[in-house]
Amino acid sequence: RGAPHRAAAGRHRREHHREAAAAAVGETHGSLDLLINAAGILSIPNVIQPETSLSKVQKSSLLLAYEVNAVGPILVIKHMRPFLKIGASLGTGKGFSLVANMSARVGSIGDNALGGWHSYRASKTALNQLTKTASVELGKKDNIACILLHPGTVDTDLSRPFQRNVAKDKLFTREFSVHKLLSIIDNAKKTDNGKFFAWDGQEIPW
Amino acid sequence: RGAPHRAAAGRHRREHHREAAAAAVGETHGSLDLLINAAGILSIPNVIQPETSLSKVQKSSLLLAYEVNAVGPILVIKHMRPFLKIGASLGTGKGFSLVANMSARVGSIGDNALGGWHSYRASKTALNQLTKTASVELGKKDNIACILLHPGTVDTDLSRPFQRNVAKDKLFTREFSVHKLLSIIDNAKKTDNGKFFAWDGQEIPW
Repeated sequence: RGAPHRAAAGRHRREHHREAAAAAVGETHGSLDLLINAAGILSIPNVIQPETSLSKVQKSSLLLAYEVNAVGPILVIKHMRPFLKIGASLGTGKGFSLVANMSARVGSIGDNALGGWHSYRASKTALNQLTKTASVELGKKDNIACILLHPGTVDTDLSRPFQRNVAKDKLFTREFSVHKLLSIIDNAKKTDNGKFFAWDGQEIPW
Repeated sequence: RGAPHRAAAGRHRREHHREAAAAAVGETHGSLDLLINAAGILSIPNVIQPETSLSKVQKSSLLLAYEVNAVGPILVIKHMRPFLKIGASLGTGKGFSLVANMSARVGSIGDNALGGWHSYRASKTALNQLTKTASVELGKKDNIACILLHPGTVDTDLSRPFQRNVAKDKLFTREFSVHKLLSIIDNAKKTDNGKFFAWDGQEIPW
């Protein structure tokens, strides 16, 4: 029980699945000191595609991306919060609990010079705001810090259809990206609460 | 036809209503040089309320606020775009067409020190990103500029349940706010494309 417990949340579209997952974690471990929300959606054949023009933007794609990429992670935090709070109170590890939400640089409004990918961009931007909003309350009341991470472009199923225009040295292996992100997570300070970091530790503008 | 035509879009949750509205504008006027998206939702008794804590955040509220405040305006732009493009090509008025989306300072991530109002905040932040994303394409291809506006806290039905903590001189009459916003709209330059302005003309951080 004194040992740190960690959970990586999968993709759960139904809230009662999230409640069940949280309850299962609670019963098994009793506490959490790290939660990584790594689930996300960019494209599914015949369902959702990154838009190359406003003319391709559809209500259904906007809502699906939002539900999976923004609503999902914030509800996971809501249901895991009691266990993260207990983890923080145990005083093991860092002395606070950490939530790391996987965002993306294309969610940055200030950095958006190219346009396109409307549904995905807006969902990650909303995730940034929801995480920042939660960080204010959780940091103050429960000694939980929330950060946002940009993993870089990683060689996964998510990026595979869009790797053509990525320079070879900008396409990371999973191992490299995870190593970099875990380094940020392991070195995170309470004062990092509410911040948005790229894989190399640089802060990204909102 | 040489005269500028203006449209303020109401609240349309169904996409075919938006298509019908766009078609009606097209048939009546043939062109538009200004589109103001002023519709928005903050609270409806027993349906949606600004959250005072993460524990009150619900999937249904997150999705409803997103649909009305972010999805609605961007789909109105999508359907009005052909008429805005014609308006820009006529060379009357400013020499370009303008889209003004009503956002809110609480949609700013950088300015978010208080937390709360999760659903509303995230929806306005997403609207900011969607508007910025559209502005890149529309500015370049169609000579249409898109801006975001924060009207201040205005004495309307939207703010009425939340006016208690607003200082007297910070609660604007509708006339004052509209006067200020129309001044920004009338003085907007093409180089303002993709920017976020408060009622007093100051830029707001993302």
